[in-house]
Amino acid sequence: MKLFSFWRSLATYRVRIALNLKGLKPEEVIDVDLMKGHQRQPAFKAVNPQMVIPALVDGEGPVLFESLAIMEYLDEVHPHPPLLPTDPRARAFVRGIAQIVACDSHPLLVPRVRNYLVGELKLDQAAVLKWIRHWVGEALDAIEAHLANDGMTGRFCCGDQPTIGDICLASQAAGAGFFEVDLKPYPTFKRVVGACMQIEAFAAAHPLKQPGAPAAVTH
Amino acid sequence: MKLFSFWRSLATYRVRIALNLKGLKPEEVIDVDLMKGHQRQPAFKAVNPQMVIPALVDGEGPVLFESLAIMEYLDEVHPHPPLLPTDPRARAFVRGIAQIVACDSHPLLVPRVRNYLVGELKLDQAAVLKWIRHWVGEALDAIEAHLANDGMTGRFCCGDQPTIGDICLASQAAGAGFFEVDLKPYPTFKRVVGACMQIEAFAAAHPLKQPGAPAAVTH
Repeated sequence: MKLFSFWRSLATYRVRIALNLKGLKPEEVIDVDLMKGHQRQPAFKAVNPQMVIPALVDGEGPVLFESLAIMEYLDEVHPHPPLLPTDPRARAFVRGIAQIVACDSHPLLVPRVRNYLVGELKLDQAAVLKWIRHWVGEALDAIEAHLANDGMTGRFCCGDQPTIGDICLASQAAGAGFFEVDLKPYPTFKRVVGACMQIEAFAAAHPLKQPGAPAAVTH
Repeated sequence: MKLFSFWRSLATYRVRIALNLKGLKPEEVIDVDLMKGHQRQPAFKAVNPQMVIPALVDGEGPVLFESLAIMEYLDEVHPHPPLLPTDPRARAFVRGIAQIVACDSHPLLVPRVRNYLVGELKLDQAAVLKWIRHWVGEALDAIEAHLANDGMTGRFCCGDQPTIGDICLASQAAGAGFFEVDLKPYPTFKRVVGACMQIEAFAAAHPLKQPGAPAAVTH
C-alpha cells in the first residue's frame, strides 16, 4: 500500500488511525505538502484528479479516494478489529456521526476553501477564523447532542469499541485544537476523544506526530 | 417509517430515490420548509439536533440522520435490490463518488452556508452564485475524471446497476440545474445521470416532482 499524506491533513489523519487500528503499515508514505500547493502539481493530479488527500493505492487498480470510503474499504478487506458495530442501527449512528464531521464540518475549512475565502472574497484572518470556528462549533453542537441523548454512546461514540465515528471525532478535535475552539460546551465529545487518545493507534497518528509537523499549530 | 423532507433538499432527494429503489414507502412524509427556516423550530430540533434534513424515523430508537448513513442503513436492512456492488474495490469507488458529492460539494451550498455568505459576509447574489458554481464545478471535474478514467463505469457509475454513487450524481445534477451550471464539460456524468433519470425511482423522487415545488427553479 502507498498512502499519500500530509501531517496537517485531518482527513488523512483518519486513514492513518484506521491503518494503525488494523495493524497495517503502508510500504510507502508520500508527502503531499498542502501548504505549498503540491496537491495541485500534475504528478499528484495524475494520482487523484480531485487533487486532495488522502489517496491510497492498494496493489493494482485505480486509486482509493475519500477518507470515509477508504476506511470502509479497509474494514471490508481487513475485518479485524472491526471499525463498525454489527447492528444496522448502530452502524447508521456511527456513520452519521462520522458524516457530521466529514461532510458538514471539515469540508468548510480545508485549504481550498480557505484559499477562496482569502483570494476571492478578500476575507482577513479574523473573518476566516470566525468562519472556521462557526462551522466547527455547529458540528460539535450536533455531535454533543447525539452523543449525550441518543443512548448509543459508551466509552466510545457507540459502545465500548472505537469505530469510524471515533476516528472522525478525533480528527474534529485536532481541527478544533488548530483553530482554538473552546471544547468546554462539549463534555461527552471531550470524554470520548480522551478515551480515543489513550489508544496508541490514535495517538501515533496525530498530525503533530507526523514528519514535518511543527511542535504546535496556531491557525 | 417517517421521513422529514422538503422538495428542494438535495440530500433528501437521495433518500427518496433509495426508498423508491427498495420499494419502501414511508407511512408519513413530514414537510420541513427550509426556505422558511422551519428546520430551526424547536419541534424539529427535538427530532434532529443538527436541524437539517433528511431525518428518518424507523420504528423505535433514535432518529437516523445524514443521507449517506441512511442509505447504507436502508441497504443493510432491506438488501434487495442492492445499492452497493459486492466487490470491496467497487464499493470504495461508489462510496468515493458519493462522497465527492455529499462531502466536498453539496455542504458548501446548503441554506445555512448561503445564509452565512449573505448575512455575515454580505455577499451579493452574483458572488453567492459564483461561489456555488465554483464548488459544484470542482466536484464535477473530479467526478468526470473518475468516471472516464478509473475503468469502473458502465451504464451507471459503477457497472450496470444503480448504486448510491448514481443517487448522489442525480442529486448533483439537480443542484447543477438549480444554479445553471453548464454540464457540457462532463459528458460521462451527463450520460450516467441520463440513464438514472430513465428509472422511475429516480424520476419520481426529483425535487421538482414533490409537493410544494415550483414548476422550475432559478437559483
